[in-house]
Amino acid sequence: MNPAQSLALRDLLSGQPIASLGTLHDGEPFVSMVPFALLPGGPDFLIHVSQMSAHTQDMLSSPPVSLLVIAPPNPDVPPQAQARVTVQGLASRLDESDPVHAAAQAAYLARFPQSAPMFELDFSLFAIRPRMLRFVGGFGQALSLTPEMFAGVLSKA
Amino acid sequence: MNPAQSLALRDLLSGQPIASLGTLHDGEPFVSMVPFALLPGGPDFLIHVSQMSAHTQDMLSSPPVSLLVIAPPNPDVPPQAQARVTVQGLASRLDESDPVHAAAQAAYLARFPQSAPMFELDFSLFAIRPRMLRFVGGFGQALSLTPEMFAGVLSKA
Repeated sequence: MNPAQSLALRDLLSGQPIASLGTLHDGEPFVSMVPFALLPGGPDFLIHVSQMSAHTQDMLSSPPVSLLVIAPPNPDVPPQAQARVTVQGLASRLDESDPVHAAAQAAYLARFPQSAPMFELDFSLFAIRPRMLRFVGGFGQALSLTPEMFAGVLSKA
Repeated sequence: MNPAQSLALRDLLSGQPIASLGTLHDGEPFVSMVPFALLPGGPDFLIHVSQMSAHTQDMLSSPPVSLLVIAPPNPDVPPQAQARVTVQGLASRLDESDPVHAAAQAAYLARFPQSAPMFELDFSLFAIRPRMLRFVGGFGQALSLTPEMFAGVLSKA
């Protein structure tokens, strides 16, 4: 992964706060929208979800999930060539007793300050730890990344 | 579903040409980016995918898929309130002998004229027939739609 590719991936993740989360629902894929933040210093993606949502129950019963982040529309780029990254990862709920909960909550609220009231409601933070990432920077520019490679990309930010 | 909600759903689908496709891959969810068009007169979503892609093989081995369309970013709308629709559907390949293939190809190329060369390559059209749709127009504005309701929404366009 060269420096330009690393920069493009960091730009994608900083420029697009919304992801598509794929969970296993009654044995079938189910895709829903989730705002996301990144855990500082770690390769985990953070989402904040309602206990009542289908995807939350899905993650609790089947932790392997998929998260897709697509670059915002760019009139100069055809739809097929939009930069995007798919993260195959494992989801786990961060209880308030978890040592990283405070840092995770702070990172999430730094990106989504309007979500503060939801931390008083029936919502939970989940961490999605990447097992494999697939970054497509454009036409014919696909790369697979290990979690270690991804951590390296983030550490250069 | 009132007229304003129908209009909002049509606007979402006409204003955003890119979806997130969830397939079942080795028993786990896998989410990838797909440009999409709508089949005229039918409730099917149309995608054009490479035989070599993981999602194509996934759909052939496990037709139940999930498709999420999220409205383009709007600075006046918080991320959590972005309009979106999740389609739970069944994917099937449209062979060239299929009676709707020509209409499907025309609809796809009307939306993505730059994709014409891909019809000469190892790509196939797939139709995703909705079994259930979940439209979230904003905070607290979630609606479930049957395929029949969705066809009614499209017919008013």
